[in-house]
Amino acid sequence: MRGIMRIRLGGGRFRATATAAGASGAAPNKSELGKQPFMAQFGQGSVEPPSNSAPAMLDPRHSERLLKKVSMLMHEAVHMRNSSLPNATLRQLREDYLMLNMDYRQRALIVLGTQFGVDRKRLKGLMQHYMTLNSVGNTEETIEDKTSDSGIDAAHYRTERDLRAALVPLSSRLFEQMNGQVGGLKFLVDLRADLKTALLKNNLASLRALDSDLQGLFATWLSPACLELHRITWNDAACLLEKIVTYEAVHPITNLYDLKRRLGTGRRCFGYFHPAMPGEPLVFIEVALTKGIEGSAQKVLFGEPPCDEAVADCALFYSITSTQPGLKGIELGNFLIKRVVHLLRQEMPEVQNFVTLSPIPGFMHWLLAKLATQCHVQKSGDKSANSKLSEKLLFPEEEVKLEACRDEGNSKGPVEFMYDVLSSAEHEWASSEKLLEALRPPLLRLCARYILQEKKRGAALDPVTNFHVRNGASVEQLNWMGDTSSKGLAASAGLMVNYRYRH
Amino acid sequence: MRGIMRIRLGGGRFRATATAAGASGAAPNKSELGKQPFMAQFGQGSVEPPSNSAPAMLDPRHSERLLKKVSMLMHEAVHMRNSSLPNATLRQLREDYLMLNMDYRQRALIVLGTQFGVDRKRLKGLMQHYMTLNSVGNTEETIEDKTSDSGIDAAHYRTERDLRAALVPLSSRLFEQMNGQVGGLKFLVDLRADLKTALLKNNLASLRALDSDLQGLFATWLSPACLELHRITWNDAACLLEKIVTYEAVHPITNLYDLKRRLGTGRRCFGYFHPAMPGEPLVFIEVALTKGIEGSAQKVLFGEPPCDEAVADCALFYSITSTQPGLKGIELGNFLIKRVVHLLRQEMPEVQNFVTLSPIPGFMHWLLAKLATQCHVQKSGDKSANSKLSEKLLFPEEEVKLEACRDEGNSKGPVEFMYDVLSSAEHEWASSEKLLEALRPPLLRLCARYILQEKKRGAALDPVTNFHVRNGASVEQLNWMGDTSSKGLAASAGLMVNYRYRH
Repeated sequence: MRGIMRIRLGGGRFRATATAAGASGAAPNKSELGKQPFMAQFGQGSVEPPSNSAPAMLDPRHSERLLKKVSMLMHEAVHMRNSSLPNATLRQLREDYLMLNMDYRQRALIVLGTQFGVDRKRLKGLMQHYMTLNSVGNTEETIEDKTSDSGIDAAHYRTERDLRAALVPLSSRLFEQMNGQVGGLKFLVDLRADLKTALLKNNLASLRALDSDLQGLFATWLSPACLELHRITWNDAACLLEKIVTYEAVHPITNLYDLKRRLGTGRRCFGYFHPAMPGEPLVFIEVALTKGIEGSAQKVLFGEPPCDEAVADCALFYSITSTQPGLKGIELGNFLIKRVVHLLRQEMPEVQNFVTLSPIPGFMHWLLAKLATQCHVQKSGDKSANSKLSEKLLFPEEEVKLEACRDEGNSKGPVEFMYDVLSSAEHEWASSEKLLEALRPPLLRLCARYILQEKKRGAALDPVTNFHVRNGASVEQLNWMGDTSSKGLAASAGLMVNYRYRH
Repeated sequence: MRGIMRIRLGGGRFRATATAAGASGAAPNKSELGKQPFMAQFGQGSVEPPSNSAPAMLDPRHSERLLKKVSMLMHEAVHMRNSSLPNATLRQLREDYLMLNMDYRQRALIVLGTQFGVDRKRLKGLMQHYMTLNSVGNTEETIEDKTSDSGIDAAHYRTERDLRAALVPLSSRLFEQMNGQVGGLKFLVDLRADLKTALLKNNLASLRALDSDLQGLFATWLSPACLELHRITWNDAACLLEKIVTYEAVHPITNLYDLKRRLGTGRRCFGYFHPAMPGEPLVFIEVALTKGIEGSAQKVLFGEPPCDEAVADCALFYSITSTQPGLKGIELGNFLIKRVVHLLRQEMPEVQNFVTLSPIPGFMHWLLAKLATQCHVQKSGDKSANSKLSEKLLFPEEEVKLEACRDEGNSKGPVEFMYDVLSSAEHEWASSEKLLEALRPPLLRLCARYILQEKKRGAALDPVTNFHVRNGASVEQLNWMGDTSSKGLAASAGLMVNYRYRH
């Protein structure tokens, strides 16, 4: 499901094949041929296929039978809840589910969502009972001297407890039983990834409810106290290191040698693991030890170790990746950053600055929309609907500089010209001294506005900004040409930002 | 609170003082002087006092002020929930609470129970809304082909989610925040121990609700996957070993030397630990490796290592102790036994039998009540009310043997004679060959009935039987004179039982 590579010895040489991203397909599939030599060198015969990957093809009649069996096993599992758990039944259920392809899995999930909900008749009966209880205005009483008890009070508490129990869907009981089993948590995390895929195709209320129930359960099961912090080094198992290569989402890792550099002198990599999912990093963070606050991703990624570790005064968090699509919405990165800050502070008291080097993934999208709107407003004249949208994006001196960059015969306005330049797929502007000089002031200014002022439902519009600011970090500085990769130019005109953690 | 010893260097020699069992007092206080030499020998200056122990005395006005402050801090903490957690506030709240003595703690708990419940007005509003939703008989539809969604359906799921959220008491939100902090879980476990003490004095519905809420939270937080199995050995820290000595509840441990024997050759001791409560064994189990199934506690406890480990074919679980009164109702022992069985099976494939050597704590209580009833029935003649209660407890040949044991001039019936003999505080019967012989058949027979047939709400009447049978164990054998300690004679006429685990 996450496109982890499977290497098979075939015809006297290694062949790399990516597993069909059967289940979720949310993480990037990176089975470039470039990785082959390193795999071969490590003599690694095979990497475990991801547990939820569906078998390539199953006879439809067989699938129908399996689906019926899965449905029957679910009913059985749920109704056995008061006695000792039928472990074999649960295991069988998991195995059968994994045999289904995505279409049948989706149908199994719909059965789970629609037939394993709440007993609404019982719930309404309890509600009717609750409504008949006379409410006692207990906030008005002198509670501190309360040493006796009224029957009404007791009935309230009791009925609330019964209501709470009645509101637990049968599916959650099944999930709880599964979580008690070896491998159960990983199965459920992958099941939620399937659910996310199913929701894209079929946005049913029952599936949404199932998704939100699972999220709630994960939030309690994955309490930070249970997560184990592990420093990932070149001494770790190759199958773990390979996962890091595959999962890394911020600055893609080319191959194991590329990873080796990120684990060497002046670098750190830490992962959070859960005891119920051994060998599976739930989230990991990469750190460079630097002198001063570094603003260029390329220097951090490809430069020599930035400085002697002994003189480093800054821990630069340049990548944080969540690996499980099924754990979307569970805050793990937050705790990981804080715990790593705490650890590094103890280990290296001379390191005073804990800052990120972060992408600004939504900046160009926002900026191009802004520029396009202004082009449109200017073209369609001064209608009142437009005047509300009209705003000055550029200062006069910025407009002058931009106009001076136009080719002869190009009479487009500065806003439209900026739009054209920035939206070009080849990013030619990034290699033109003149354009760079003209674009730098407005891009920095507008990016600062984007990060600091643009909101969506009260939260920062940029998802990365929102993540760090909500975690308590502050915006430290913007970096011009911080990421000159084509991904960086496309997403944020090459800008990067440092957020500072102070805990 | 658990009577852990504090050793202070005073007047040139060690003095042992037990902390006032301030908070819960549920675990035995065992600060016998006999422990002193070992402590001294270990050069252990002081053992951490239990975290929730109340200070000896606090000025009442100061206490009143503190209680007000605690109450205020609780309100603050709960209402901050949507933003980043005020860790300092929570820490302050914990510190202040721990400064209170038991009376004031109880008042703080009542405030928590009565003022931090459910918003009943909001809850009733949601219920009214839910009642107005037209129910769709969705079990009748052909759900498997369901690919579209009705608005009514979505409203049901949404309102159920809102109801679930509205039914979470404010106190649970506070507990969740605390659980995120270092030391938070241990604080809450000890808080629940306080709550148990408070409930003995003041059985309020609000306190009962708080207790059951906390139990539910613990059950999710202490998921088996997060518990760490640790083999406890003589290499462990003395402060941990001392806790084992203090906590052991089945066969009391006299001192650290006594414990050393239980950690030596032919023995094992395993504890379950939670990462959020380091150094605190939540439950621990003691194992003897034996040849054949041993039935005598004294042989296991005081005999030489029962056999060479290499020839052992049986792992005998002779003691399992839960240490935290605040975790009452959370099943940890169940998982611990199964995990240890699994581990030993891997380590020692020649060990085939996994059996307990267990006390029968409720047998004598049940038997004496049965005997007393029959005495009463026989005395008060043949009224119809009595005839229902009347039953033959003894076989004729057993009656004859018992009658032959009576002193001359004693004309009591065999049932009354048996009652007298067994209820004597000195257990003289256990040293009389004749009485032993006469009592053995009826005691074994009635004990088998007690264990196998006597039920309470469908579960075995004996709590230890219920625990093991519910965990999937079977009753293996009864052992005559299995525990000849006076505790064993008083609780179960010296009988012990083996339960067998087969997983």
